[in-house]
Amino acid sequence: MNLDKLQNWLISTNNDVAYISDPISINYFTGYSMDPHERIFALIAFKDKPAFIFAPELNVEEAKNSAWDGDVYGYLDHENPWAKIADLVNQRVGKPNNIAIEKSHLSVDRLEQLRIAFPDSSFTNNVSPFVAEARLRKTPEEVEQLKAAGAEADFAFQIGFNALRNGVTERYVAGQIDYQLKLQKGVMHTSFETIVQAGTNAANPHLGPTMNKIEPNELVLFDLGTMHNGYASDSSRTVAYGEPTAKEKKFMKSTVRRNKQLLKQLNQALLLAN
Amino acid sequence: MNLDKLQNWLISTNNDVAYISDPISINYFTGYSMDPHERIFALIAFKDKPAFIFAPELNVEEAKNSAWDGDVYGYLDHENPWAKIADLVNQRVGKPNNIAIEKSHLSVDRLEQLRIAFPDSSFTNNVSPFVAEARLRKTPEEVEQLKAAGAEADFAFQIGFNALRNGVTERYVAGQIDYQLKLQKGVMHTSFETIVQAGTNAANPHLGPTMNKIEPNELVLFDLGTMHNGYASDSSRTVAYGEPTAKEKKFMKSTVRRNKQLLKQLNQALLLAN
Repeated sequence: MNLDKLQNWLISTNNDVAYISDPISINYFTGYSMDPHERIFALIAFKDKPAFIFAPELNVEEAKNSAWDGDVYGYLDHENPWAKIADLVNQRVGKPNNIAIEKSHLSVDRLEQLRIAFPDSSFTNNVSPFVAEARLRKTPEEVEQLKAAGAEADFAFQIGFNALRNGVTERYVAGQIDYQLKLQKGVMHTSFETIVQAGTNAANPHLGPTMNKIEPNELVLFDLGTMHNGYASDSSRTVAYGEPTAKEKKFMKSTVRRNKQLLKQLNQALLLAN
Repeated sequence: MNLDKLQNWLISTNNDVAYISDPISINYFTGYSMDPHERIFALIAFKDKPAFIFAPELNVEEAKNSAWDGDVYGYLDHENPWAKIADLVNQRVGKPNNIAIEKSHLSVDRLEQLRIAFPDSSFTNNVSPFVAEARLRKTPEEVEQLKAAGAEADFAFQIGFNALRNGVTERYVAGQIDYQLKLQKGVMHTSFETIVQAGTNAANPHLGPTMNKIEPNELVLFDLGTMHNGYASDSSRTVAYGEPTAKEKKFMKSTVRRNKQLLKQLNQALLLAN
């Protein structure tokens, strides 16, 4: 379980509490996914007590019905969430000395609120590097989730390729992809805005789809990915709609050759590293 | 111009520099909108010098071609963005005493990086409340953007109402809305995930659309909004698909009556306040 890793880290670094605020990290440690918008959402983990989720009251039922089987506490908009968190923490472990925070996520004003709620605690320890490192190493179950996200991306490419017609706009093709992902695969979130760009637009990968129309014998860039239970795919394909020019074919061949060389070098480096 | 307000605030509060990091605030002050993901993106404004945008190198061209007509500086992934920012600031104003930050947005680790880059500066001043207050008061041009976002939401409701059929899933209806918004109105972003929930699901407003099928004579909740040039709509409608029960009709009537009363009281309070 991922939460065990966090508890072991707390023990080995002598932190009493971890205040986890990034919803992606909370999902990673608890299996519960939610976007709190401007409200307070945290996983509070301890060296030697059970962790709990703190969430807006309107999400408490959902959190309790999720994969998370620990405690869930809520707050209403008129309540002071920081005082409630301090009460809950104090009930479990008294006054903590060291509270590790996610410095790459927590905002400065929320740290100031935590300092007021825990005037005797130190917040100098950063749990972000540990979370990043933990997430680098995937379990077999996580690899399956990533493969499922990859399969959704493959499906999306097929929808996109099939939607190419003379004169359809980039936005039409991007819209088809998102719609069919939702309808046929139940994909509610892409991992970023689906990119379809044709002709000269294909050379500007972060422009986003425009009302530019797809013409015969153009190259079309696809850049897309899906979220699958919190795991993202992120893939790119450049295809010729119609017949590519000799120059385009030559570039494609040299790119494929160079990619294969790089993959070979990478595999050799990995073999040496192992 | 919104940037003038920020400069006046800097003068009146004796801050030398404002480090604006929230992309929504940057859009508000510059007219340039971008999602930097994990990279550094900032508007640096001064009491008595021209402001500049600092962005990842791959967005510099786009920023220069946007509504923003001031300077834009970029950094490459292998460069230290904080050292570059400090150089640019020092060139303009030497060593600043007070740098105001957006405490509601800036993460703790980025503040630590700024402290290293500006060891002689104070970061105790918070520009977030000023930005929030400034954004409360809309110009006539901003009111027009909000109206356009509202019109897109009206269009979305119509698409959703027309998509209601016996046995279609909530996700199908939500998918239709997003797809037709993109196709017919060029809306690339909703302001949050489009919500369509029918029957008992309609009582759980933050569940999100499921594969639940719409049955005759059910209530259907719609909750949706669009982004229009950075301005959001956020609307909700509960409609009866078929014939509502007598009890449902009674609830609806009393809700409408209560809403009208509240609006009247609000208008009276506003009249008194003015």
